[in-house]
Amino acid sequence: MAKRSYPLAKVYGLLEPGPVVLLTTAGKARPDVMTLSWHMMVEFEPPLVACVVSNRDYSYGLLKAARECVLAIPTADLAEQVVAVGNCSGREVDKFQAFGLTAEPATLVQAPLVGECYANLECRVHDTRMVNRYGIFILEVVKAWVDPAVKDPKTLHHRGMGAFMVAGETIKLKSAMK
Amino acid sequence: MAKRSYPLAKVYGLLEPGPVVLLTTAGKARPDVMTLSWHMMVEFEPPLVACVVSNRDYSYGLLKAARECVLAIPTADLAEQVVAVGNCSGREVDKFQAFGLTAEPATLVQAPLVGECYANLECRVHDTRMVNRYGIFILEVVKAWVDPAVKDPKTLHHRGMGAFMVAGETIKLKSAMK
Repeated sequence: MAKRSYPLAKVYGLLEPGPVVLLTTAGKARPDVMTLSWHMMVEFEPPLVACVVSNRDYSYGLLKAARECVLAIPTADLAEQVVAVGNCSGREVDKFQAFGLTAEPATLVQAPLVGECYANLECRVHDTRMVNRYGIFILEVVKAWVDPAVKDPKTLHHRGMGAFMVAGETIKLKSAMK
Repeated sequence: MAKRSYPLAKVYGLLEPGPVVLLTTAGKARPDVMTLSWHMMVEFEPPLVACVVSNRDYSYGLLKAARECVLAIPTADLAEQVVAVGNCSGREVDKFQAFGLTAEPATLVQAPLVGECYANLECRVHDTRMVNRYGIFILEVVKAWVDPAVKDPKTLHHRGMGAFMVAGETIKLKSAMK
């Protein structure tokens, strides 16, 4: 996908709707990627994002060690890959290769962008105080990329057990809320 | 709306897609309600939910003091009220009355359910360690109510500046993920 640098101040608008994301880490021998829905914005700017990564996930150790990752936001055309990524472990599988995802170089972190995703957020780990207790990592988004051609992304929103709500129409209301 | 007790083990499926929620507190003279999109699941069962409430919000002090709230999930027919609730403060406005929302009694907490919402989650504050630093409250859902007639709720997902994505169709894939 084409990608253009995206203002950090607008990143919240990408994650606040609650899409499934792919979290990539540089890994040791090869990059890894996991599927994740448990994330939320914490601060507008610099954009802080909390996410939950279980200590049972292979990515947990990689993220703790590298303190860097990329959050990539897929659209519905990637649904099969999103599920496949979520159903196996990077301990056994080179997921980028196995599922036809393209690891592209990021600029500020070693973790790769996912070429097929319409948005990619380069992140550094900002706070690990809640990692041992809940698996909550607080990330700072340090660089954002978006495909400018995608205006109303058909993001995936996990309802559980393989059911995903696909983003519908966007409505606009007069609001003072950011 | 009709409401039926809902299994706590299935609560994650209501919040994981990332809908805008209304957070109610019992308040002092009258119940209060705020609009919130910064939340995520933290644990399946008992269901733990993290959410961000700013110390600038009137609800912040109420939630800190009462250590109880309700998360109510509205659908698109309530979009005007959701925005109106988010654009004023309970310091000045009786929001339930002003916006035609019905405060109904909960069973395990003093905070009210929102009668017009298809799902209501009674919550107790579980952890406040991250409140001072980030406004992150960790809540435990202790009782859940859902209108059984609503199968594919047209939830609202905030994209920023009054733009909301409305939940679209649900697709099902074969998945081992919970």
